[in-house]
Amino acid sequence: MSERLVVIGGDAAGMSAASQARRLKKPEELEIVAFERGTFTSFSACGIPYWVGGDVEERDDLIARTPEAHRERAIDVRMRTEVVEIDARQRRVRSRDLASGTEEWTTYDKLVIATGARPVRPDLPGIDAPGVHGVQTLDDGQALIDTLTKTKGRRAVVIGAGYIGVEMAEALLHRGYEVTVVNRGQEPMSTLDPDMGRLVHEAMTGMGITMVNDAEVTKILTGDDGRARAVATDDREFPADVVVLGIGVRPETALARDAGLPLGEHGGLLTDLGMRVRGPVADGAIWAGGDCVEVLNLVSGREQHIALGTHANKHGQVIGSNVGGGYATFPGVVGTAVSKVCDLEIARTGLREKDARAAGLQYVAVTIESTSRAGYYPGAALMTVKMLAERRTGRLLGTQIVGREGAGKRVDVAAVALTARMTVEQMTALDLGYAPPFSPVWDPVLVAARKAVTAVRSGGA
Amino acid sequence: MSERLVVIGGDAAGMSAASQARRLKKPEELEIVAFERGTFTSFSACGIPYWVGGDVEERDDLIARTPEAHRERAIDVRMRTEVVEIDARQRRVRSRDLASGTEEWTTYDKLVIATGARPVRPDLPGIDAPGVHGVQTLDDGQALIDTLTKTKGRRAVVIGAGYIGVEMAEALLHRGYEVTVVNRGQEPMSTLDPDMGRLVHEAMTGMGITMVNDAEVTKILTGDDGRARAVATDDREFPADVVVLGIGVRPETALARDAGLPLGEHGGLLTDLGMRVRGPVADGAIWAGGDCVEVLNLVSGREQHIALGTHANKHGQVIGSNVGGGYATFPGVVGTAVSKVCDLEIARTGLREKDARAAGLQYVAVTIESTSRAGYYPGAALMTVKMLAERRTGRLLGTQIVGREGAGKRVDVAAVALTARMTVEQMTALDLGYAPPFSPVWDPVLVAARKAVTAVRSGGA
Repeated sequence: MSERLVVIGGDAAGMSAASQARRLKKPEELEIVAFERGTFTSFSACGIPYWVGGDVEERDDLIARTPEAHRERAIDVRMRTEVVEIDARQRRVRSRDLASGTEEWTTYDKLVIATGARPVRPDLPGIDAPGVHGVQTLDDGQALIDTLTKTKGRRAVVIGAGYIGVEMAEALLHRGYEVTVVNRGQEPMSTLDPDMGRLVHEAMTGMGITMVNDAEVTKILTGDDGRARAVATDDREFPADVVVLGIGVRPETALARDAGLPLGEHGGLLTDLGMRVRGPVADGAIWAGGDCVEVLNLVSGREQHIALGTHANKHGQVIGSNVGGGYATFPGVVGTAVSKVCDLEIARTGLREKDARAAGLQYVAVTIESTSRAGYYPGAALMTVKMLAERRTGRLLGTQIVGREGAGKRVDVAAVALTARMTVEQMTALDLGYAPPFSPVWDPVLVAARKAVTAVRSGGA
Repeated sequence: MSERLVVIGGDAAGMSAASQARRLKKPEELEIVAFERGTFTSFSACGIPYWVGGDVEERDDLIARTPEAHRERAIDVRMRTEVVEIDARQRRVRSRDLASGTEEWTTYDKLVIATGARPVRPDLPGIDAPGVHGVQTLDDGQALIDTLTKTKGRRAVVIGAGYIGVEMAEALLHRGYEVTVVNRGQEPMSTLDPDMGRLVHEAMTGMGITMVNDAEVTKILTGDDGRARAVATDDREFPADVVVLGIGVRPETALARDAGLPLGEHGGLLTDLGMRVRGPVADGAIWAGGDCVEVLNLVSGREQHIALGTHANKHGQVIGSNVGGGYATFPGVVGTAVSKVCDLEIARTGLREKDARAAGLQYVAVTIESTSRAGYYPGAALMTVKMLAERRTGRLLGTQIVGREGAGKRVDVAAVALTARMTVEQMTALDLGYAPPFSPVWDPVLVAARKAVTAVRSGGA
């Protein structure tokens, strides 16, 4: 007897789940229907800044798999079709064809919710004016590129200085714009502690980007033609020929909420370790993954919302295994993220100081400077590593790195050490790859760990 | 009452131990005497190929700390003074001033043996001819550079294709030589499995290096001037204006052996986890570290000999803490190594197939290809990752990586996972840094782990 799997959302989590389920179950065993309200499947949203900036030439380079390719693997992808209601009691979804407006019900045996996230779009005067762009979808990216191509002016304002904001700053710089980044936080990159964010601020200023911190945008001013002409805060105006919103995203869970499914304090769906939605309404038949769920942070022990393609792919893989009759779990995250602005690499994993405090953890924090290669080797670049360790136990709690080439991916060592719940003392003995072109004789992460050991020892009882 | 610490060997392990002990104990508490038979202290032997190749300009760039700098920190460094006997019963060493030939006894309360390693120099006809060079010491490096400067010919033969051999091949290529690498093994880089070594062979051939495998050198042929003119194997001759030996090293432990101290099956000193030499002769008063000791491989559970500056520095740190009244241990290694030939990066950690077999482990082995960055991002470079996992348990046993930029240091993720005794299934959930300029959405190490999971599952009961 054939079952039907319905997937809501045709991007990373949803289509990974569908593909993995298809690997495990033949079409005669499992019918798979996927609804996507947009015009693309399986695309890399993370790649949009590099497409806008010109590093990636074609939009289609960002598409990992087209609807046709999915259909060839017996996944019934229904494009431009939005699911507008989940009826969990009767195990069915109501979908609307966006072109014709016709609606229909589709029953499911198993349902995957992969509705993703929506960009924060503050309710400000002028926010919908032409010339104001988000960068969440490929259509957003194309619209921005079209504006950039048509615009004669060369002044760009980016609102927000998180990873999307700083990556868009680079993209606009690459296209020859004078870039201003307006940021409500004390420093850019609020995923770092402010002392590390300051290093990003200084480096971006050094690249010719105007960095404005502690600034709340109050409105977008428009010209006689109705187009955006400036971004205003309480006391200043920043002229803009184009405005890019990089404020962050929220889980897209209105559908789930309306269906009575459980949401966490960040608005994301709550699942078990197999990515199955918790609670009686889901009744064990609904899974969720990607940017619409909350994930367990293994260091803080708390749920958080992290929109990242790498998690979405893992979720999809886990969900597909489970709905396909296999077994897999997603144990949680440690909060690793890496990004860059031109040649500046920015990485973090684990907890910031304020996260540690919020989790009830006491900690020591140390910061060191070292280099990406042996000091005498050409191209050795400075990097700053900040490390947090728990008071008394010395367990690693977090690591932040800001530097140039070779800095960012070093955070992976700390990410694995966090997963393994290592102490900083254990880390000092880690057998990391050493040769002069790759590292100083003490890798920068180990230098930080050594300093953290000293701090833990002198940190009182 | 003041104690005396005597250190034999003025390089990484010895001087790190001395420095760390000095941090913990004032000169009036602990007198420190260090004997060094050469003319330099604390230099980076690993940097010699880059100095010879011209990437590093000055010999002195490779010196981390001069004898004078050590003396300023109240370490009594005695240069060009060789320890010729250890009398463990009476806790004293006999040293010889190499200039004058005078000898004297120095008593110790604590002794550190850090005599390093000596290059393998096979007993072949012609091996001592002018034009044949080792690259172990700064003096060796200078002698080679002098030869290269004087030599008109442009043909270089490197004997050995381990990491020193391949790094020297790059150095000689940089200096404009036609380079031939003659290697007794089936493939270059015998620290890799042959299938991965083959990739190195192909890449080096692609750089214009002549690679000769399965070739046992029988003699160095000399010309009428007595200088080396060719390297001969059983059936071939390779003309050479300069010959470089890169065959590897052995622990320099004649002194320790003569003193009756315990050596392992690879000829290195055997210590406990605090780096204290085992057994009744040492009587708890002798420590040893660096290239003259054997270390515990945490994956195989066996001792092995690994000559690497990064281990030597850690040993020194541990020894210095312990002799200075602190406490530290060196838990062992997982066998991580990274090197490069031009833009080819080569890395390994854990066990090769033959190591796993020798350790009595059954395993599955998988190999994947992936890229250093998202496939659509400029500069995304191919890399091959091979991964071994234990049959049934799925525990990670080893990882080998060959690729271009961004390949080498990825081995660190596997090194930490090995230390934490993770399974490949646990690794698939690792939260590694992802952004298109840094990694595909599944990091190559995770792609390999996923394939290994499948292999373990289908690997029988």
